[in-house]
Amino acid sequence: MTEQADAATLTIALDRADPEPGYVQIYAQIRELILAGRVAPGSRLPSTRALAAETGVSRTTTLAAYDQLTAEGYLENRVGAGAFVSRDLPDTVLAAPPAGRVPSPAGTSPAPAKVDPPWTRPRTFDPGIADRDAFPLDEWTRSLLRSHRALDRATLFGRGTGGFEPLREAIAGHLRAMRGFDCAAGQVIVTSGAQEAVALLARVLLRPGDTVWMEDPGYGAVRRAFSVLGARVACIPVDGEGFDLEQALASAPGARLAFVTPSRHYPLGMTMPLARRLALIDWARSEGAWVIEDDFDSEYRYRGRPLASLMSLAGDRGVVYLGSFSKVMFQNLRLSWLVAPPALARDLVRAQADIGAQVSIVAQPALADFIATGRFAAHIRRMRRLYAARQSHLVAEVARLADDLLDVAPQDGGMHLIARPKPALARRMSDREASERARDAGLTIVPLSGFYAGEAAEQGFLLGYAGVPEAEITAGIERLAGCLR
Amino acid sequence: MTEQADAATLTIALDRADPEPGYVQIYAQIRELILAGRVAPGSRLPSTRALAAETGVSRTTTLAAYDQLTAEGYLENRVGAGAFVSRDLPDTVLAAPPAGRVPSPAGTSPAPAKVDPPWTRPRTFDPGIADRDAFPLDEWTRSLLRSHRALDRATLFGRGTGGFEPLREAIAGHLRAMRGFDCAAGQVIVTSGAQEAVALLARVLLRPGDTVWMEDPGYGAVRRAFSVLGARVACIPVDGEGFDLEQALASAPGARLAFVTPSRHYPLGMTMPLARRLALIDWARSEGAWVIEDDFDSEYRYRGRPLASLMSLAGDRGVVYLGSFSKVMFQNLRLSWLVAPPALARDLVRAQADIGAQVSIVAQPALADFIATGRFAAHIRRMRRLYAARQSHLVAEVARLADDLLDVAPQDGGMHLIARPKPALARRMSDREASERARDAGLTIVPLSGFYAGEAAEQGFLLGYAGVPEAEITAGIERLAGCLR
Repeated sequence: MTEQADAATLTIALDRADPEPGYVQIYAQIRELILAGRVAPGSRLPSTRALAAETGVSRTTTLAAYDQLTAEGYLENRVGAGAFVSRDLPDTVLAAPPAGRVPSPAGTSPAPAKVDPPWTRPRTFDPGIADRDAFPLDEWTRSLLRSHRALDRATLFGRGTGGFEPLREAIAGHLRAMRGFDCAAGQVIVTSGAQEAVALLARVLLRPGDTVWMEDPGYGAVRRAFSVLGARVACIPVDGEGFDLEQALASAPGARLAFVTPSRHYPLGMTMPLARRLALIDWARSEGAWVIEDDFDSEYRYRGRPLASLMSLAGDRGVVYLGSFSKVMFQNLRLSWLVAPPALARDLVRAQADIGAQVSIVAQPALADFIATGRFAAHIRRMRRLYAARQSHLVAEVARLADDLLDVAPQDGGMHLIARPKPALARRMSDREASERARDAGLTIVPLSGFYAGEAAEQGFLLGYAGVPEAEITAGIERLAGCLR
Repeated sequence: MTEQADAATLTIALDRADPEPGYVQIYAQIRELILAGRVAPGSRLPSTRALAAETGVSRTTTLAAYDQLTAEGYLENRVGAGAFVSRDLPDTVLAAPPAGRVPSPAGTSPAPAKVDPPWTRPRTFDPGIADRDAFPLDEWTRSLLRSHRALDRATLFGRGTGGFEPLREAIAGHLRAMRGFDCAAGQVIVTSGAQEAVALLARVLLRPGDTVWMEDPGYGAVRRAFSVLGARVACIPVDGEGFDLEQALASAPGARLAFVTPSRHYPLGMTMPLARRLALIDWARSEGAWVIEDDFDSEYRYRGRPLASLMSLAGDRGVVYLGSFSKVMFQNLRLSWLVAPPALARDLVRAQADIGAQVSIVAQPALADFIATGRFAAHIRRMRRLYAARQSHLVAEVARLADDLLDVAPQDGGMHLIARPKPALARRMSDREASERARDAGLTIVPLSGFYAGEAAEQGFLLGYAGVPEAEITAGIERLAGCLR
């Protein structure tokens, strides 16, 4: 049994300052030892318990690392004997760079064999991430190829402000069909995300020191973006109906702009009722102020009809509408858009030129094709069914496996749910501590308290489910319950 | 001759508040009248002189509009008779949306026939724009297709901070070959442009109120970006050797960061000599400060060897290096990169996640392929020959056609030259007035005074030549001389 020599001499060191969770560090170090031939195929690894003791992490952490290595074929488990380096590792894996890697440029030394960074994989319960396996990659690639073959040079060279014209038209058509409001292509501006939209809007609509209302809890990155740009951000506590205009007027009068999520509050998920929508529009009109309506995931509504958007209620005055492709398509697409009344849209296009905020052209014709040929709408319909089922499964599994720890209520839409700790758990640890524990076990559960500007009114977690297959939801809740007990 | 009925009743109205130059407005309005069938094929247009009088613009402006319409086949000129709407306009042009346009989504009303916006075309002498016709579009499309077919889902989903790993490796290899310095892929961070790089660097390296040194004249968008982010920007007048450390220390001591263009000063074009480079590095090291080296177009050097970059002189301390693809490839690619010492690179990647500044994945694998297969280097070599010839042609044509108006000296590299007004012209108008006149005639000549933070020490224009064929350079200088006389 020489080939099963003990490899308990693994030198694994965790770097606490490294932003990567412990299990990823352990996974990556063992994988590199295997690929470098420092741990031979067939050799036995230390037990998860021994490795945990040696490196000073929890056993959940070492288990998560071994699970991942096993799932990828680097380790095999023999019942009663522990984990062994797989003997089926092909020689090519041990010598060559991973598949999909582009070869080094001629004339330079070959890059050392490196592993794909494991952190490019979404982690269980990461919110706002679409499903990876259900994404129609072939259809998307075809859209990319077809649209790129037809692309003319004028589109590659020249100003890119506003966005690629056919994409702006396709988005206007999509909004007509999905959200029931009419806008011209010239009112649509393609951006690289909500933060860039904020930078443009702040430049055109705000002067330094102007007050901006944001929801509390709310979107921290947008809050920070407004602050950095010189606005005074007033965070207004939401209630069961979302943003509360009365409270905003009482506590921070004279705002120039309100940033709200009426379709589904982010992150809590409630819908703003019609009366509040109309009041907000009235406020904007009478004050000459602006409401930014972030409609970030309204495509995913599973029950009932959505309320009319602020934009469609307001017509051509006082409202700017934000939407995103990255949540519906894939995370690294990094394409969003906004819709503004015509005069403001022209000013925003000019601001894009001023601050050099044009979006790369390369993905835009592909998206225009993907939308115009109906593939985008079909994808949303398919994902709606898939995500609705996953949400139900998550609610059921929390009730079955973690009923002593967490409360989870279903919601009408979205890509994540809010889990609230039961009193016994809340007494033992904060949501931040709980999420740290989960993180070391390879789970991303974002603490609710991080969404508050000041002290959190409520503790809880975001459990993203859209990108998580049902079996993984079950395993994740089991693992989470283990971390929290 | 009924089909040649006079169309002198054209209703053309210029909007002075519109950012589009006059000739573009006239061009677009006539084109729309033709496409809408409001001016029949064969009908005669008013003379350029009459239209100029009627609309209150110069004749150069109406000539430029008619030239463009003629070049595109909408008008035909008959000697001695004036301009007529072309009788060869195919019916499809009159009814259908322009070619390359994506059809409207099913179920929505068809978009009205619209013209391609003429402002997507670069205008003569627009600086920093690569040649459109010489760009190897087929090779680029092949890189896009090949790399996208091999793309895995993990790359589309998951975190995109830092950039696509094979692209980071390809950039490191490119820098080794082209700029002679070694860096690891992990030190390379892909960004969407210099402004985003500035936002990341400011977040990691600066506290509000810290002093930043910039060159004067210099890059206004970067200056504004630092200011908006809370830095105190001190603009230091350059001399014949570029940024002057002694003067900076005397006038604004205690800076935390210096943003410089040592390879070729932007926009004046001088090279910083070695002694100044070393002094700047010494300053950064002894003060624990940082030098940002913007090497924005160092690929285009036509004579002599480039000096060693600050980054290669400084090693792992005190220097961050910025480069861009958009100038070498095409304007709307919107991809840049920075290289930082390893520890700083890790902090910048974290900052990218914090401010949501990841770059869209879609173009990155294609670029990695384009570089790794040697196509990028070959393209640069071809463009170097082309642009060097265009620079020589521009110098010769200014001497031949505008010797009474402008002085232009050749430079060792770059994509634009500086034209300085001769005293007789300088007495008659400012560089801004001159550029306004040129703009109405369809020429972009950016005034030098706009690059100064305060009062301009010098007047002049940037004449971009990289994207301008030699015949167009000749015609452009003729037209420019006409505007300025």
